[in-house]
Amino acid sequence: MTRTVLESASKTVTIGFDEPFCVIGERINPTGRKKLAAELEAGDFSTVQKDALEQVACGAAVLDVNAGVVYNSNPDPNVTEPPLMRQMIELVQGLVEVPLCIDSSVPGALQAGLEAAKGRPLVNSVTGEDERLDLVLPLVAKYNVPVVAISNDDTGISEDPDVRFEVARRIVQRAADFGIPAHDIVVDPLVMPVGAMATAGRQVFALVRRLRDELGVNTTCGASNISFGLPHRHGINAAFLPMAIGAGMTSAIMNPVRLVEMEAIRAANMLMDHDANGGDWIRFSRVIEAVEQGQSFAEASKTAMASAAGGGRRGGRRARG
Amino acid sequence: MTRTVLESASKTVTIGFDEPFCVIGERINPTGRKKLAAELEAGDFSTVQKDALEQVACGAAVLDVNAGVVYNSNPDPNVTEPPLMRQMIELVQGLVEVPLCIDSSVPGALQAGLEAAKGRPLVNSVTGEDERLDLVLPLVAKYNVPVVAISNDDTGISEDPDVRFEVARRIVQRAADFGIPAHDIVVDPLVMPVGAMATAGRQVFALVRRLRDELGVNTTCGASNISFGLPHRHGINAAFLPMAIGAGMTSAIMNPVRLVEMEAIRAANMLMDHDANGGDWIRFSRVIEAVEQGQSFAEASKTAMASAAGGGRRGGRRARG
Repeated sequence: MTRTVLESASKTVTIGFDEPFCVIGERINPTGRKKLAAELEAGDFSTVQKDALEQVACGAAVLDVNAGVVYNSNPDPNVTEPPLMRQMIELVQGLVEVPLCIDSSVPGALQAGLEAAKGRPLVNSVTGEDERLDLVLPLVAKYNVPVVAISNDDTGISEDPDVRFEVARRIVQRAADFGIPAHDIVVDPLVMPVGAMATAGRQVFALVRRLRDELGVNTTCGASNISFGLPHRHGINAAFLPMAIGAGMTSAIMNPVRLVEMEAIRAANMLMDHDANGGDWIRFSRVIEAVEQGQSFAEASKTAMASAAGGGRRGGRRARG
Repeated sequence: MTRTVLESASKTVTIGFDEPFCVIGERINPTGRKKLAAELEAGDFSTVQKDALEQVACGAAVLDVNAGVVYNSNPDPNVTEPPLMRQMIELVQGLVEVPLCIDSSVPGALQAGLEAAKGRPLVNSVTGEDERLDLVLPLVAKYNVPVVAISNDDTGISEDPDVRFEVARRIVQRAADFGIPAHDIVVDPLVMPVGAMATAGRQVFALVRRLRDELGVNTTCGASNISFGLPHRHGINAAFLPMAIGAGMTSAIMNPVRLVEMEAIRAANMLMDHDANGGDWIRFSRVIEAVEQGQSFAEASKTAMASAAGGGRRGGRRARG
C-alpha cells in the first residue's frame, strides 16, 4: 500500500490510498496576488501569517509555500527567492504544526527551503523536462524527501492522457536512478479546464486509476483548474473532488478556505471509509451550522478548532460562538 | 453499449452509460406522507399535480408514481391501489411529458399502471424473491417494458456485496427465461446508510462497476439512503451522487426539488462529458443565481423552463424574474 510520509518537527501526515484525502493549502503564494507580493517586498508577513492559520483551521493537512515574487527593486528570482523562501518557511513552521510543501521553480529556493524546513517536507515540483529532472531529483535524493511530479516534458503538456501517463512513468524511472522510491513521488496528471476540453474530467479519473494501479503512486492536482472559465466554479469543483477521490486521487493543492469544496472532501472521505464512525463529518457539521448562522468559514473553523483543543467542556461556548 | 429506453406518449428517455444521469423523481408517493395519503383518500390530487410539475421543472427525466395508500376506510391495498394507480398515472401523464415509473408491490397495481400508462414506462420493482419474480416478470414480459431489479432475495438484504451481486445476476438470468433482455433491467444494488455501515459507499461504487462490466446492466438507487441518520444529509448526498456517477451509476430515484443534489448531478454530467459544451451547466447556473437572489429552487427552475420554452427573447424577463 503506497504511503508518502510528510513530517514537520512535531507532526506526521501520510498521503495514501487508505488515508483521508490530503488537502495541501495553496494560499501562501504571491503568484497573481499583487498585494501579497508588495507586502513581501516591504517585509510585511501579516497576510502569510493569516493565510497559514486560516488554512490549517479550515482543514489543510499540509501548507504549500511559494516565494515566487518579482520585486520592483530586483527582478531576478534566483536572487530574491532563496532568502525569502527561507524566511517564509521559518515563519510558517513557527506558527503552525503541519508539514510544508516547498514550491518553487528556482533550484536555489528549493535548496533554501529544504535547509530551513524541519522534518520531511514535500518538494513542489519536478517535471519530465530533462533540465528539471537533473536539477531537482538530486536535491530530492540528498534530502530524502517526497516530490510532486508534473506530467509534462520538453514537448509541453500533451492533450493525450496516454502521453501524460508515459511522462509520469519516465519521471518515476528517472527518480529510481537517484534512489528515490515510487512511494515518494506524488504525480500531478495535469487537470485541464473542462470548459475547454470536454473530456478533461474523464481523462483525470482514468489517469488517476492507471497511475495508482500501474505505477503505484499517489496523486495530486491543482483542483480548481477543472472549472476555469465556467460560471459557478465552486459547484463544479465540489463535484470534481469527490469524483477524483472515488477514482483514487489522494491529495490536491487547493484553497481550503472554501466551505463548499471542503464539505465535499469530508463527505467523500466518509464515503471512502476514511472517517471512522463519521466522527470527522459530525464535527464538521457544527462548522456548517455556524456558517449557516452567519459566521465566515474561516472564523467558524477557528472557533471549532479552539473548542476541540480545549476539550468537551468548551463545546457550549462553540455552539453560542 | 447498454441502453434502457423509456417512453411516454411523446418523449423518449434513455438510461445509458453514455447518457446524462437519469433523475427519477420520487415525490409522488404517499408512503410516509400522511397528508398526501389523506388527500388521496379524499380524492384531492392537488399535491400530486404540484409534485409532478415541480419535479419536472427541477430536472426529473422520469417520474415515479406510487399509489401505496392505506385508507382508513379500506386497509386492503389489493383493493385500493389498482384504481388509484390508474387514476394517478392518467393524471400525471396528462400534466407532464416525461415517461413514468410504476412503483408498487401490489401486482394488481402494476397491472393497472401498465394498462393506463402510454409508451414504455419503467416498472418498479422486482426483487430476487421467488414469489416476486414469478409475479412481476410475466407482466414485464407481457408489456415489453424495463424493470428495476432490487438485489435482495428470500434470505433478505445481505450486507455482503458479493451476495447482492449474485442476486442481481440471478434476476437477470430469470428475466432472460421470460425473454427480457439485460438492457431492460435496471439494477438497484441497495444503498446502505454510511452512518451504520462504514463501507456502504465503497460497496456501492464497487458493485456498480461490476454490474456494469460483468452484467452490462444500468443501475439505480435510492440515493438519499446513504446519508440516513447523519447530520447535513444534503452534503453527503451531493458527494455521493458524483462518486456513484463516476463509478458508472446511470440513474437514481430521488427528490429532484433540491438544488444541492441537482447541482452536483449537473456538474458530474459535465465532468463525464455528458453535457456538450457545458450548455446544460451554463443554463443551470442561471437557476443557481436566481436561488442566490432569494427564489426557491422550484420557482427558479419553472421560470427558467418557461423562459427556455419561450425562446431567447424572453431571457431578459427571466433575469429580472
